[in-house]
Amino acid sequence: MEYKFSDRVQNLKPSAIREIFKYAADPAVVSLSAGNPAPEAFPSKEIAEISQKLLSENPIAALQYSVTEGYTPLRDYLKEYMKTKHNTGSSSDELLITSGAQQIMDLASKSLLNEGDVVICENPSFIGSLNTFRSYNARLAGVETESDGINVEKLEKTLQNEPRAKFIYTIPNFQNPSGVTMSLEKRKAVYELAKKYGVLIIEDNPYGDLRFSGDFLPNIKTFDDEGIVIYSGSFSKVISPGMRVGFTIAPKEIVSKMVVCKQGQDVHTNIWSQIVCHEFITKYDFDAHLARLRDIYKKKANFAMDLLDEHLAPKITYNRIDGGLFIWCDLPENVDCDKFAVEAIQNKVCIVPGSAFMANPSDVTHSFRINFSTPTDEQLEKGIAILGKMAGKL
Amino acid sequence: MEYKFSDRVQNLKPSAIREIFKYAADPAVVSLSAGNPAPEAFPSKEIAEISQKLLSENPIAALQYSVTEGYTPLRDYLKEYMKTKHNTGSSSDELLITSGAQQIMDLASKSLLNEGDVVICENPSFIGSLNTFRSYNARLAGVETESDGINVEKLEKTLQNEPRAKFIYTIPNFQNPSGVTMSLEKRKAVYELAKKYGVLIIEDNPYGDLRFSGDFLPNIKTFDDEGIVIYSGSFSKVISPGMRVGFTIAPKEIVSKMVVCKQGQDVHTNIWSQIVCHEFITKYDFDAHLARLRDIYKKKANFAMDLLDEHLAPKITYNRIDGGLFIWCDLPENVDCDKFAVEAIQNKVCIVPGSAFMANPSDVTHSFRINFSTPTDEQLEKGIAILGKMAGKL
Repeated sequence: MEYKFSDRVQNLKPSAIREIFKYAADPAVVSLSAGNPAPEAFPSKEIAEISQKLLSENPIAALQYSVTEGYTPLRDYLKEYMKTKHNTGSSSDELLITSGAQQIMDLASKSLLNEGDVVICENPSFIGSLNTFRSYNARLAGVETESDGINVEKLEKTLQNEPRAKFIYTIPNFQNPSGVTMSLEKRKAVYELAKKYGVLIIEDNPYGDLRFSGDFLPNIKTFDDEGIVIYSGSFSKVISPGMRVGFTIAPKEIVSKMVVCKQGQDVHTNIWSQIVCHEFITKYDFDAHLARLRDIYKKKANFAMDLLDEHLAPKITYNRIDGGLFIWCDLPENVDCDKFAVEAIQNKVCIVPGSAFMANPSDVTHSFRINFSTPTDEQLEKGIAILGKMAGKL
Repeated sequence: MEYKFSDRVQNLKPSAIREIFKYAADPAVVSLSAGNPAPEAFPSKEIAEISQKLLSENPIAALQYSVTEGYTPLRDYLKEYMKTKHNTGSSSDELLITSGAQQIMDLASKSLLNEGDVVICENPSFIGSLNTFRSYNARLAGVETESDGINVEKLEKTLQNEPRAKFIYTIPNFQNPSGVTMSLEKRKAVYELAKKYGVLIIEDNPYGDLRFSGDFLPNIKTFDDEGIVIYSGSFSKVISPGMRVGFTIAPKEIVSKMVVCKQGQDVHTNIWSQIVCHEFITKYDFDAHLARLRDIYKKKANFAMDLLDEHLAPKITYNRIDGGLFIWCDLPENVDCDKFAVEAIQNKVCIVPGSAFMANPSDVTHSFRINFSTPTDEQLEKGIAILGKMAGKL
């Protein structure tokens, strides 16, 4: 039988990163291509304790069907916590628990995008979200980013040129893949432009708690008097990604559409993991845990950046980062990043070519992304030394 | 701000059952409207044991990112198990783990349906799946069902009249909500018709293992020489629905599109629950567990049917069931099922009016669905006695 697929998936391809991961699975290859939390960053002992108590004392609560909106005590706590700690969310917003933040991208896309609508994004940006937008046949319009975030003039030009723009997708903190953090001025400017042009903003903030230097900056959602920002939070980087627990804080009307879509998508998020997250953030010292994570990643990031200084300069440069999990490295302009990534694989080190993160195949980049949270120090040393040898030959 | 939603969700509404559940949450109301497994049916002790061992010995495996296709040992075991035990799946099929079987409906819809395509379904059918098909702006064509399954002549007529039919959605065993099991002859006929008219079949089988009388019948997927059947399996009714673990066995080409869609939807299914399911079905006596479930539900179903015989006859009738979780009751033809359901709520018992399960709002039904797995025996006695009093006044 010849299958006739929907127009929207006709041209969808598995993410380029996934294809690269196939090489990364070879134990002889040093993988700098993942985005996994460091194994030592998991609160494994605490989760085991919570889970054991829960499954012995109240197993049905953890195993039975639950409600689509999410575990009520977790929702109530997060509303209060995000309001108190981050001034994020208002009485006209609602909070929905999702199966990872990835599901927020899907539910928002499904609720808001007609085929041919436009999503404006930073260029480069997170491939997982971009592929979700593509899967609803949206067109992506990438806007250049600088060391302090998106180029605001170019963003306004794009808004003027794209009457079908539905939302701006941004990762303001330690952006994946560029590592860039958007300045306070630009956060305000992006919000004002969205307001002026009547488009929404999806503010994706998986790494916000992983700042290990510099000052915390307010979320764009804190300016949201008009109800135009969909905030996306996640426990993947601060508790466990395998649990698949994220949450969105967004205008009630939008959340109510997302809830109906979620009902048809997975009914509700795994309830064991929702209860475990709630217990962990309420019964344990969550602030101390976050401080410990920042220590871990600060050490690892500095270790990686020292190695980059030692091995890659001057041919390959990078921007220092203040948090997150990724470093964006720039090749000389005459070097093709795809060819460099293939050559790296042949030399037994796996990186992600910048092209994977571009909004459109024709967008040019001479960069690649490395991750420092997943590899061990030894693997970082080995992998970056190999890249250094390759840099010497450029 | 006035939000402009996508065409597909413009008219989507929360499921009617969810609205009814709001009343069911009142502790004074006897709820016969749910579809939850009986609390005593959960292998709680075993899950606690498995989870404790897993989280103390190998926590990172249960908490780290995993692959979209699903936990490899679970996939491999299920392929072998479904082939050996149910003759289901072939070398041209692939198996994908999903976040509950609900996600199979979403991923198949997203991969296959363009707006305006037609899904043919039994009428009545499971509202959760119908709403997913609706959420992709598919049109539903309901085909009358009889006590041995879908009316095959009417199915063929519908196939002739609907050139945009993309797939037939069927629940062959103990259908939700009708309780009907499709005969072997009709399973073969449905397969042959799908083949003849070049449409696919989604065979949804959440209750197949819950047969407490009569003989097991082969899945439609066992006839699938042409690669036209998408089989949908679930652990929700046999292990735990809160875990959200389902699986599809479908032609490789279709699964590969579903994998790409899943990647953008939730990356992967909660990995703790996948490992727990694998351990439970491989290290414990799964057959003995299923036998125990069949005993529990046989007892509860017979208890409920005895009460229906005692209280509801002759005004309200029903078809005896051989498995599953639901009984479909028929009101006299002059009684409006929605009004009856509202009156039942006023009398403190919650049932689901048949109208909630119809493919189109104009399709007429005089039936309602009751569930016997969730209420206690006392609640069943009380609730059905109330319905009996109402029946006496019809």
